[in-house]
Amino acid sequence: MTETAEPKSYQRIFPDPDAEGLTAEIEGIDESGDRVTVPVVVEKPMTIFLNRQEIVTSMTLGDWPEYMAVGFLRNQHMLHDDDVVTAVDIDEELGVIVVRTERETDYEAKLQKKIRTSGCAQGTVFGDMMDRFEQISLNPDARIHTSGLMRLTKTINTTPSLYLSAGAIHGCVLASGEEALVYMEDIGRHNAVDKIAGWMFLNGVSGGDKIFYTTGRLTSEMVIKTVQMEIPILVSRSGFTESGVELARKAGLTLIGRARGRRFTALSGVERIIYDASEDDGDEADTLSYQRQQQRQPR
Amino acid sequence: MTETAEPKSYQRIFPDPDAEGLTAEIEGIDESGDRVTVPVVVEKPMTIFLNRQEIVTSMTLGDWPEYMAVGFLRNQHMLHDDDVVTAVDIDEELGVIVVRTERETDYEAKLQKKIRTSGCAQGTVFGDMMDRFEQISLNPDARIHTSGLMRLTKTINTTPSLYLSAGAIHGCVLASGEEALVYMEDIGRHNAVDKIAGWMFLNGVSGGDKIFYTTGRLTSEMVIKTVQMEIPILVSRSGFTESGVELARKAGLTLIGRARGRRFTALSGVERIIYDASEDDGDEADTLSYQRQQQRQPR
Repeated sequence: MTETAEPKSYQRIFPDPDAEGLTAEIEGIDESGDRVTVPVVVEKPMTIFLNRQEIVTSMTLGDWPEYMAVGFLRNQHMLHDDDVVTAVDIDEELGVIVVRTERETDYEAKLQKKIRTSGCAQGTVFGDMMDRFEQISLNPDARIHTSGLMRLTKTINTTPSLYLSAGAIHGCVLASGEEALVYMEDIGRHNAVDKIAGWMFLNGVSGGDKIFYTTGRLTSEMVIKTVQMEIPILVSRSGFTESGVELARKAGLTLIGRARGRRFTALSGVERIIYDASEDDGDEADTLSYQRQQQRQPR
Repeated sequence: MTETAEPKSYQRIFPDPDAEGLTAEIEGIDESGDRVTVPVVVEKPMTIFLNRQEIVTSMTLGDWPEYMAVGFLRNQHMLHDDDVVTAVDIDEELGVIVVRTERETDYEAKLQKKIRTSGCAQGTVFGDMMDRFEQISLNPDARIHTSGLMRLTKTINTTPSLYLSAGAIHGCVLASGEEALVYMEDIGRHNAVDKIAGWMFLNGVSGGDKIFYTTGRLTSEMVIKTVQMEIPILVSRSGFTESGVELARKAGLTLIGRARGRRFTALSGVERIIYDASEDDGDEADTLSYQRQQQRQPR
């Protein structure tokens, strides 16, 4: 838990749209009054405890609860770099996740101060989230190649997922260059981010040479969480909010939005971008897959 | 504030994409390395007080703060049917909205118990939100005509909005039949809903004969808020979550999702739907507008 060197191997995670319990088949009718059966993603409450203290209840897809809980606590600074997680106990039936640490913890004061964050990127965050943000220096030597970005988005768009099979869900991907390492989905995008943060923490994977991809908008919360994971490059298929851009510029984060097929807009940290894409990158297959996805856009 | 009869006239509200302070022009570069300037929606913190008590801080677009604050308090049951709002004081600079009521209020106990709700539909909700939900009977005589639904979605898709001009934003519409009465936008979809709830409360408009349209997914929070506004029909361009469907069925809410052009899927309360659309409804103009919007999907 406390090691900082990159481990040689770790379990890569990709969506498992056929896994039991993630979708339900629901009967209804269509515009002609005909009976239809559609797959619908599930959503359930899970309550996160840190040792003996109840921290928050979150509506979630429910897969990878240990990563979600650890990532949430990590992103809220309730787990420190040198903390040792001794156990993560999960009671699926009660909807409870208990993260246990060597260090004794008490965040009663912190729990009093919560902020509602914006829109799709919304989560419950706590007042001091910005404290650490200002101390982080992102890796100036990280680079993103436009050719690699196009191959990465093509991989994401064509990987089987709940997004493609049921829709109404967000996805986040941790990538190394054009290679996807972890692809998490959740009803709440903040949960998908937290699952990746938890995976990184528990596997001792650092963010400095990684790229973070999200299907969601580039809001202030998204930028803050990416910077906290020390990832220098954030990419989204969706658009920007002004404070997201402002915070990214402050932190020196490379912020790339509206990334679709061959196109994108970069509004911060553009010095990390290397323009090497040829006409063959971001090809028709990607565009077709993208169009198919548009039928299912979650929002 | 306490009247229950529908007022004869009220101010209809539609998006004002050119209003000052809602978007900023930001410089960046595109996929070819060329300079571009793109409009980006703003996002700012506003703190809601009820009388002397600080309730929550929300990241918001910032338009219609009085409706957002009153609607939020209303949806959290901190404002009752018979409460009289004596003033709503707004300090734009400090980002503070103070709602004042005749009744003395104290929600300290309630503020201790918050739940993170899911995904895009996320907001901070409080533990007793379900209490009132179970007591509400939705109007069984309300109807939605498929022809009217198609004309309504066409109106929404072609009305000038921040969604069309800048993207990365959610929209909610309160409609009477095929007629849009209020069309609110916000970075956070829960804020857009709250603005409509506040507008209804302050204008004494009841929900029993209305239709609620959202660009966002049909999650449990969206269903709970629609039922609380006593609106019997909820329509979305996006998809469903299982617990959203489950709650809608429990409440007898008509739940229509994936409504695009002529197509939709209804998973609850289908008895309120009247199939009268002809081949001319949901025409090409709508489809074209929809395609244009897809370029800007917020998620």
